[in-house]
Amino acid sequence: MALCAFPLPVHVNRTTVTDPQKITPLTPNVFLGRDPVIQSPHNLNQIQTKKRPNGVRATLSERGEYHSQKPPTPLLDTIDYPIHMKNLSVKEVKQLADELRTDVIFNVSKTGGHLGSSLGVVELTVALHFVFDTPQDKIMWDVGHQSYPHKILTGRRDKMSTIRQTNGLAGFTKLTESEYDCFGTGHSSTTISAGLGMAVGRDLQGRENHVVAVIGDGAMTAGQAYEAMNNAGYLDSDVIIILNDNKQVSLPTASLDGPIPPVGALSSALSRLQSNKPLRELREVAKGVTRKLGGSMHNLASKVDEYARGMISGSGSTLFEELGLYYIGPVDGHNIDDLVSILKEVKNTKKTGPVLIHVVTEKGHGYPYAERAADKYHGVVKFDPATGKQFKTSAPTQAYTTYFVEALIAEAEVDKDIVAIHAAMGGGTGLNHFLRRFPNRCFDVGIAEQHAVTFAAGLACEGVKPFCAIYSSFLQRAYDQVVHDVDLQKLPVRFAMDRAGLVGADGPTHCGAFDVTYMACLPNMVVMAPSDEAELFNMVATAVAIDDRPSCFRYPRGNGIGVELPVGNKGTPLEVGKGRILQEGEKVALVGYGTAVQNCLAAANLLETHGLRLTVADARFCKPLDHALIRSLAKSHKVLITVEEGSIGGFGSHVAQFLALDGLLDGTVKWIPMVLPDRYIDHGSPADQLAEAGLTPSHIAATVFNILGQTRDALEIMSCRT
Amino acid sequence: MALCAFPLPVHVNRTTVTDPQKITPLTPNVFLGRDPVIQSPHNLNQIQTKKRPNGVRATLSERGEYHSQKPPTPLLDTIDYPIHMKNLSVKEVKQLADELRTDVIFNVSKTGGHLGSSLGVVELTVALHFVFDTPQDKIMWDVGHQSYPHKILTGRRDKMSTIRQTNGLAGFTKLTESEYDCFGTGHSSTTISAGLGMAVGRDLQGRENHVVAVIGDGAMTAGQAYEAMNNAGYLDSDVIIILNDNKQVSLPTASLDGPIPPVGALSSALSRLQSNKPLRELREVAKGVTRKLGGSMHNLASKVDEYARGMISGSGSTLFEELGLYYIGPVDGHNIDDLVSILKEVKNTKKTGPVLIHVVTEKGHGYPYAERAADKYHGVVKFDPATGKQFKTSAPTQAYTTYFVEALIAEAEVDKDIVAIHAAMGGGTGLNHFLRRFPNRCFDVGIAEQHAVTFAAGLACEGVKPFCAIYSSFLQRAYDQVVHDVDLQKLPVRFAMDRAGLVGADGPTHCGAFDVTYMACLPNMVVMAPSDEAELFNMVATAVAIDDRPSCFRYPRGNGIGVELPVGNKGTPLEVGKGRILQEGEKVALVGYGTAVQNCLAAANLLETHGLRLTVADARFCKPLDHALIRSLAKSHKVLITVEEGSIGGFGSHVAQFLALDGLLDGTVKWIPMVLPDRYIDHGSPADQLAEAGLTPSHIAATVFNILGQTRDALEIMSCRT
Repeated sequence: MALCAFPLPVHVNRTTVTDPQKITPLTPNVFLGRDPVIQSPHNLNQIQTKKRPNGVRATLSERGEYHSQKPPTPLLDTIDYPIHMKNLSVKEVKQLADELRTDVIFNVSKTGGHLGSSLGVVELTVALHFVFDTPQDKIMWDVGHQSYPHKILTGRRDKMSTIRQTNGLAGFTKLTESEYDCFGTGHSSTTISAGLGMAVGRDLQGRENHVVAVIGDGAMTAGQAYEAMNNAGYLDSDVIIILNDNKQVSLPTASLDGPIPPVGALSSALSRLQSNKPLRELREVAKGVTRKLGGSMHNLASKVDEYARGMISGSGSTLFEELGLYYIGPVDGHNIDDLVSILKEVKNTKKTGPVLIHVVTEKGHGYPYAERAADKYHGVVKFDPATGKQFKTSAPTQAYTTYFVEALIAEAEVDKDIVAIHAAMGGGTGLNHFLRRFPNRCFDVGIAEQHAVTFAAGLACEGVKPFCAIYSSFLQRAYDQVVHDVDLQKLPVRFAMDRAGLVGADGPTHCGAFDVTYMACLPNMVVMAPSDEAELFNMVATAVAIDDRPSCFRYPRGNGIGVELPVGNKGTPLEVGKGRILQEGEKVALVGYGTAVQNCLAAANLLETHGLRLTVADARFCKPLDHALIRSLAKSHKVLITVEEGSIGGFGSHVAQFLALDGLLDGTVKWIPMVLPDRYIDHGSPADQLAEAGLTPSHIAATVFNILGQTRDALEIMSCRT
Repeated sequence: MALCAFPLPVHVNRTTVTDPQKITPLTPNVFLGRDPVIQSPHNLNQIQTKKRPNGVRATLSERGEYHSQKPPTPLLDTIDYPIHMKNLSVKEVKQLADELRTDVIFNVSKTGGHLGSSLGVVELTVALHFVFDTPQDKIMWDVGHQSYPHKILTGRRDKMSTIRQTNGLAGFTKLTESEYDCFGTGHSSTTISAGLGMAVGRDLQGRENHVVAVIGDGAMTAGQAYEAMNNAGYLDSDVIIILNDNKQVSLPTASLDGPIPPVGALSSALSRLQSNKPLRELREVAKGVTRKLGGSMHNLASKVDEYARGMISGSGSTLFEELGLYYIGPVDGHNIDDLVSILKEVKNTKKTGPVLIHVVTEKGHGYPYAERAADKYHGVVKFDPATGKQFKTSAPTQAYTTYFVEALIAEAEVDKDIVAIHAAMGGGTGLNHFLRRFPNRCFDVGIAEQHAVTFAAGLACEGVKPFCAIYSSFLQRAYDQVVHDVDLQKLPVRFAMDRAGLVGADGPTHCGAFDVTYMACLPNMVVMAPSDEAELFNMVATAVAIDDRPSCFRYPRGNGIGVELPVGNKGTPLEVGKGRILQEGEKVALVGYGTAVQNCLAAANLLETHGLRLTVADARFCKPLDHALIRSLAKSHKVLITVEEGSIGGFGSHVAQFLALDGLLDGTVKWIPMVLPDRYIDHGSPADQLAEAGLTPSHIAATVFNILGQTRDALEIMSCRT
């Protein structure tokens, strides 16, 4: 099945703006329901309905002015699809880039989202779509959060106001959203592999399109990128890799004082390449020589080229050349002339094999507030374009992430053996705070979850107490290391699994749906989840105390519920494998795992208003499971409902297996599992996602009514739900 | 908890051989039950009880003679632990290496096992243990199948006859087997990460031992190795990486005509390094200059060094130097003089940061039959040392692996879009046969499962039909790619999961315990398992036919059961999500998944002799589950027993969740899950492993009796079981 190989029938349904001078500020389009996949216009005639502005004029971006009003974008207004750019002059392409930048800034100021990385690739995006012929040519954006300019140029400008919102555009590229998104992204470092697959597939099928993968220097630290480059060098298919080098190996957070320096030896190798101006100039000379020597002398010429470079730099060929890629660079990623001429040359050369174009960009480029910010406005909430001021709302509680790192710091104050490890997520995991308190005990290994986990295993061998803080969905990338290096060897590595369960705006790529299932099947792992932030402090303390086997605890994206925190942030270790009853009731017991416990309590409150008093328990541990608690609940209730924000195979399945083997599924108790549904849930507000998952308090209460045969009450409760 | 940081109390319990000249052929020791972890002698006095042979003599290995009798090994007989080597001369160390080689050959000729890789590192093993002070110094063997010489030198020589057998030594290094095995291995490319963790842990704890990771060039193609080197270059801790370059990026099989050439651009980069003799010589000169210039001129001297290398080679610094490692090499890995002097120099230098010593070895070295063989005797059955002839037994059926590749070739003959992908396992997956039939449609990507899966996703985007053949336990390494790049995008990649379930001699590192659990929780995945080899042909055909979503099928290590195969090897696509009833009975229904179906049938036969006729069903699909079949069985039986060779969270859990949500767990039917136990099962014979897992026909039959209250019959059946 070719999902994106051929142009599909054309339906361009965007309203045509006939006079770009008279454009009114964009009213946010409410994008209800799923539109069909966005498809390309099939010929140039379709652009003739739009009138081009007369002459190139300085944009706000060029003049360095930003206002809270929608900026005029006369040229951009004529571009719905890349095909509409094809007869622009390079000078006009530059204007287009400037307008596109102002448009991105204005859009993101209204929605929030990933700003800095998108601003860094404005020129690159325009140059790529100017030179290549998408969607026949494939352009992939690694990670995908820098794809806002790409989305604007590929038929989605009018939906940018819906980005990352329920039923709106995704914050990453997405296969089902547009024909121009030839590969879905979210997790990093996948596009060279995918691009090589597409290139080989193209060759097998006898097509001739180009394949371009744009990948950041941070994403280059992941093992998969290396595996893919090594294989690309061997297979020698024509594939173009654009290394978007913006020195972002480590992502600092805006909440901290200054940036954390990039990690990894790769970053210094790249710096060396960047700073090597004589090398760059000499390379141009050598390339000229190469060309003049012609085809038959190719090998000799290559040697001259390499030799010259080696002589000047003293470092000789680059890592990329060692891996068999043809290296071009470094190129100024904000210079459209250079970008267009290099991309055209590469496009027009056949049988190049894999080419790597090293493009140097600045994150946040062209928006002074972003350029000056420590995090380059990586991810922002809504803000005022004129001042760059972000409209941060103050919440009564903090994020679970913050509580986690406060708990860990409190433990580390009294136990010098505790260290923390993250994979280029010092901001996201909160561990930058830990780093500032304990500079020698925090390890950012780069985007390298596999290494992070086995590195932690090695630390554990030495008597150190490692905490690996990795998002639930990112830990999938180190699953084998968790199994083979940690669990099988029973090494006491502690996994702090952030962003467990539904994650809101980031959507299904980042949803932590599977961690309970994939961790709890491992024989030696202690698997736990806090039901509130105070419990999180206790579970961090519990993980410190578990020193004879691995352990993990999952906690959600979002804020705590406002319970009292332990004195001095120091939690109390829990008895391993013991849950607790939160309220006693009859007939039905709700057993929640993790934050689902709160929804169980809310459901119980709802039912209490209908005269039903239920038992509610907080399992705390999926493994070891509290057999005594489950047995006692099973014997004293007609129904036992397990509730979790996770997939099948997790907590509920462990409860069921225990009940079955304990002889309690013989009619003693009915077990009803409530888990995430068997489909991916799109990005949206947390409330919408929970409702779509069927795990709101109303859903739980309605399930109770249904099981008790009170279907009318069930319907009523669902119709009243907020 | 320090698992391997400190020497533990000493118990050396090996019989002392007082006169090595009078040694009798080794009687295989039956190694019953678990010995305590092997620990080191704590002082040199313990070696004084052994008499050394007079003078160095030529060994059989040196004379090139091999016999079926145990060879005399007078010097080796005096070495129980590395500490016993410390006062040998380098000449004696060479003799020790030769004797060790003959001992490895003799031992493996009696047991089978990994021979070629062990023979390649004999000199390296001896040199490492001569120079470094284990177990305080840490030596890790990546993958671990080359650790036989290491095991012989570290207190386990008398147990080598038990290797890979039930209750015997493991075929890899194992943390709980010996204090000298400082990290367990099995899967590749983990030791640089672990070593860096140990080095950082050592520094944090203020110790001064050395850490050495020996890793093959094949293992270097895995992303994790790159992630670890990149991080090592950044952290700059003292860690010694020994690249054991034996040109084995791809492992051909003995059953094929000749070796498959190494894959990956890395292999050509290594070849360039190897062949570069002038570079090597000049480097020595440059290093001399460096030393003479002294400390203050260090930076300049380094530049001279680099510059010189760049001028001569034209390729300049190596990939390893780009990643921040200090590169030394290439070194002849069979030259003990060179190895010892280089290792001593590195050992005696402080603050080196990460050093990579590039050692070139020959797989199978020193045993002509291995050297000449296509697979270098990578893994062998028992053989005659004098002739190299392997005692292969002929079986009435072939391995499931062979049936898989026959099925795939038959499909590919009629569907030109089918391609096959494996990760350096052309022999293990059988795909070398596919390669020979379709040279342009088979892709060996190196030890790079992550890339393999996303590469397949890219191919699927282009309308190609990729089959990814990856062992169940190795697919753990690409779990995120399966989730994020394949399942979430609903791309029709087909996963052939070989070595599913228990795997016998390879043990828990290679046990495919978790695949049903981690695959069946994914929303779009079709998850199936054949109950016999004919069904495997049908499932390959089914996977070809499923072109709108991903699918996977698991099959075991070992041979088929001898059922009739489809004509022309061409299977028939099954109806997706439909199981089948194999025999009708009453009261109890056994529902097997995969090869467990055969054990269900055998259990039913056993019970029939006791007057019970059971229903037996073959589920075929875990997902989509055959709801109609399960519902019907639940309604017509008192007990429904699910049986699978997999962990909790898999097939049984999916059945339970369906039964619960369908209202059938209200006493209608009792569900009893039979899964792999919640512990790792050590290497051993398949029969022993199945018994330890409690999944033999007798266990199933006894479970039936127990659930029916016939405990006496259950006991009887267990006491009679074969």
